[in-house]
Amino acid sequence: METIAYIRTDFPEKFGIPRQSGLVSSLKGTVVFEPPYRHPQAFKGLEGFSHIWLLWKFSHSRKEHWSATVKPPRLRGKKMGVFATRSPFRPNDIGLSCVRLECVETDPVYGPVLRVSGADLMDRTPIYDIKPYIPFADCHPEATGGYTEETRLYRLRVDFPEELLCRYPEEKRKAVMEVLSEDPRPAYVQDENRIYGVSFAGFDVKFQVEQEVLKVCDVVPLSGKERRG
Amino acid sequence: METIAYIRTDFPEKFGIPRQSGLVSSLKGTVVFEPPYRHPQAFKGLEGFSHIWLLWKFSHSRKEHWSATVKPPRLRGKKMGVFATRSPFRPNDIGLSCVRLECVETDPVYGPVLRVSGADLMDRTPIYDIKPYIPFADCHPEATGGYTEETRLYRLRVDFPEELLCRYPEEKRKAVMEVLSEDPRPAYVQDENRIYGVSFAGFDVKFQVEQEVLKVCDVVPLSGKERRG
Repeated sequence: METIAYIRTDFPEKFGIPRQSGLVSSLKGTVVFEPPYRHPQAFKGLEGFSHIWLLWKFSHSRKEHWSATVKPPRLRGKKMGVFATRSPFRPNDIGLSCVRLECVETDPVYGPVLRVSGADLMDRTPIYDIKPYIPFADCHPEATGGYTEETRLYRLRVDFPEELLCRYPEEKRKAVMEVLSEDPRPAYVQDENRIYGVSFAGFDVKFQVEQEVLKVCDVVPLSGKERRG
Repeated sequence: METIAYIRTDFPEKFGIPRQSGLVSSLKGTVVFEPPYRHPQAFKGLEGFSHIWLLWKFSHSRKEHWSATVKPPRLRGKKMGVFATRSPFRPNDIGLSCVRLECVETDPVYGPVLRVSGADLMDRTPIYDIKPYIPFADCHPEATGGYTEETRLYRLRVDFPEELLCRYPEEKRKAVMEVLSEDPRPAYVQDENRIYGVSFAGFDVKFQVEQEVLKVCDVVPLSGKERRG
């Protein structure tokens, strides 16, 4: 398996990344190809598709072992079979995400790059493949989603004081609000006194959660090293 | 990348396999896991999902090279970028198919097996991963399908004489009709005099195509070796 590209996103760390692609549509990302794959011809016809699949490497999950069962977030510690989840602790470290394809651009240095939105991937995640989302094969409105149906509408209310929110450039504000509303806390800790931090788009956002409300208490610029993840 | 399972289908050869999963819903398949993955617990919760993703290896496509452009079937020789297609001639030999999960069964010898339908895979294709189809992340009724939209309704009319069709057991007849209606001919040959053969469910089906009609001329049992692919 060869890395054909890397994705650039606003998440330098794994913590805080939405649990599925498409949940936060305002998240922007860019797929930059490795030199052997920078053929404009290889993308001919892709612009007609509104969505694409990314097949990617779980590069930042410990992977010495796989587990027969895992505890998905939102299920309050209930265990599910690993093959009934998208958890990274699986036999082969491949992730699958559907993202919206905003456009195919030609960068003067990197050649063809893909602008995407909705990506649940860490910055610099290696990409193994890009495939078009073919509606007649991939879209199944009749599909049932098992245990994910119980939890799909879960969101936190976000209390983000204006003076802190405006430290973000305007085009990032909607996205950071949505990322926080997805409840970035790990499934196994629910401590109301604990201050958590999510790194997003150049800042570390500090917050607490009480009941169903997430309250932001600080927004701190990341250092250059932290930004790079 | 480790093979975690193999799929058993009625296609001992690549020729004749529908170009996308789900096109022929009457196709049945069984996913049989390798010994290290035969944990009943690993499938807990999967039965709540009506559809699953199979990530699989393009095991029977020549793969010495990838091509920047390919000619998708149905497009009359028009070239598309490989990343705008699901063609096997891509940098990494991973296929992606959505299939319906009929049930999870426990086989006395093989442990948990998955009964699926709609699989566009050759018999004994190696499987790398099983993931649940999560409707809120994977189902996009608003998605546009680029050049695939022009051709998705294309079907041949199938003229399958009753005395030949009844050589198939009753439960395979609908599937073989649907497989043929998908037009198994290679995109690059359109010879009305040529007799083609598709191996399916223990028989070789011989046919010709004239205009939009596929006419079956013989149904010949496969030998044991041919059945195995």
